[in-house]
Amino acid sequence: MVLDQRQLPGATVHRTLGHLPEVAEAIRTLTVRGAPTIGVAAAYGMVLGQRVDGLGVDEAARLLRETRPTAHDLFVGIAEVERAWREGKDTLAAAAAYERRLVEECHAIGEAGAPLVGQGARVLTHCNAGALATVAWGTALAPIRVAFRSGRDPFVWVDETRPLLQGSRLTAWELREEGIRHAVIADNAAGYFLGRGEVDLVIVGADRITRSGDFANKVGTYEKAVLARENGVPFYVAAPWSTFDASLTRGDEIPVEERSGDEVRNFAGIATAPEGSPVRNPAFDLTPHRFVRGFITPDGVLAPEEIEERLKAQRPLHP
Amino acid sequence: MVLDQRQLPGATVHRTLGHLPEVAEAIRTLTVRGAPTIGVAAAYGMVLGQRVDGLGVDEAARLLRETRPTAHDLFVGIAEVERAWREGKDTLAAAAAYERRLVEECHAIGEAGAPLVGQGARVLTHCNAGALATVAWGTALAPIRVAFRSGRDPFVWVDETRPLLQGSRLTAWELREEGIRHAVIADNAAGYFLGRGEVDLVIVGADRITRSGDFANKVGTYEKAVLARENGVPFYVAAPWSTFDASLTRGDEIPVEERSGDEVRNFAGIATAPEGSPVRNPAFDLTPHRFVRGFITPDGVLAPEEIEERLKAQRPLHP
Repeated sequence: MVLDQRQLPGATVHRTLGHLPEVAEAIRTLTVRGAPTIGVAAAYGMVLGQRVDGLGVDEAARLLRETRPTAHDLFVGIAEVERAWREGKDTLAAAAAYERRLVEECHAIGEAGAPLVGQGARVLTHCNAGALATVAWGTALAPIRVAFRSGRDPFVWVDETRPLLQGSRLTAWELREEGIRHAVIADNAAGYFLGRGEVDLVIVGADRITRSGDFANKVGTYEKAVLARENGVPFYVAAPWSTFDASLTRGDEIPVEERSGDEVRNFAGIATAPEGSPVRNPAFDLTPHRFVRGFITPDGVLAPEEIEERLKAQRPLHP
Repeated sequence: MVLDQRQLPGATVHRTLGHLPEVAEAIRTLTVRGAPTIGVAAAYGMVLGQRVDGLGVDEAARLLRETRPTAHDLFVGIAEVERAWREGKDTLAAAAAYERRLVEECHAIGEAGAPLVGQGARVLTHCNAGALATVAWGTALAPIRVAFRSGRDPFVWVDETRPLLQGSRLTAWELREEGIRHAVIADNAAGYFLGRGEVDLVIVGADRITRSGDFANKVGTYEKAVLARENGVPFYVAAPWSTFDASLTRGDEIPVEERSGDEVRNFAGIATAPEGSPVRNPAFDLTPHRFVRGFITPDGVLAPEEIEERLKAQRPLHP
């Protein structure tokens, strides 16, 4: 069962996905979104492909891999179950173990990052890297949640995150549900508040992080990283190990998904641009590691130059 | 008669405003928007206040001045007619002269700026500083129009410009009407295309420019200025003399209008954020002059450090 994230905050609709092609479609259409969540959805999709749809392992993996190109977690989630499948082990147990590890990692991210969120800290975030994106706790929101539960009363600036408004629709919804202080702002206004000294730190999630620390995240992240540095505000990236791709070094090696122009051309069926005007809609952008103060990982806050060494010490996560 | 810019591009609705309070309301609600256009609307509003509504000059000027705090043109447009009124001169002639001068200045901006727009140049603009904002020709769009008519085939990246989408609704509409190549992008995507080397220069309008060259423009302008410098892309501001405020030096002396959160909370009546989530909605931001390569004025392209001297030579435009 998944929560249809496209309909939030207007409606809370749960959908039950019983077949692998339905899972693939849910990932493609962003019914399920957020790098860690799509990794887990894909892991369970593999189980359905084996047990319900009677597919071969190659076919099942292929159908899920074709859905979205950027998030590394997708490929890790598929690979974790694929390995169990090929080895004749219990695929459902493999998917469940993957989900459990992610929940633990996100909680560890919260514990590792919470010390960065001081009393009354004002945190800017972009897109949704909360519980909806990451099964539980969230990645970027995890340190804020832990700080909030410790009584440190954080405040969150929530970028709307056009075109799909995952910030104002999803992050604001999560924060409101939990009672964490926040304000929604147009994406354009982040620079204004950064420039006025009203932001203490920035925390975002990621869809893929290379060995060097260059990373892909929702389009607009690069803009906020540049503005944070310009204003001397520290910029952090929170992610579980499945988001790190040890096979890549530079950000420009990450494939950036370009989605339909209709996401920009409309909102909820209402035209936002003239018919016949061309639209470009990259879903992600690439931020060089020099803009990142630290990566909030399940094993602590790492500087970009520490990532490569640490990746070698991790249990390998290869798609 | 004014074009209701709130309904573009869905509908082309003209409204006839016969009284000063209607003009004030049209400016307040953004039925009429864009610094030079609201200056001209206010000038004609003064004429209506005198001839139709039988108001005193102080009352008429006060009602119009209270509409919006940031754009300097508003105060200049009011002052130009106020002076004629107090001197017993023809107020309609004064308003018409002000409008005529603006049209001439915008055309001169186009001629002055067109050499910056080379063959096939890719120009990023933010918000709408086209004909709709400025009576005719536009300010930021004027150099692009002149380059287009000289056969130089420019291409325009059109920022959507949340929350009110003046880019995707108005700038894209103007460019499509004229057959100028363009693509609409989410505000968040400008950094992506700047980072990939797909933008040759940035041209924006302004709502108020100080003696030092610090200026206010639609929120999000500061973000693009910082990103342009980060990527070595020249950043220009196009404006008529009525946008320059010789009485101010630093950007933070400019009052920044904060508008209703409902502009962010809704689009065309559809919720974009949860009910009960607080919203902050500054309509403008402030860009320090160090980010500006040049100001495209009716008298040529000036470096920030040339402004103060040139303002002394101009016929005074004081509100």
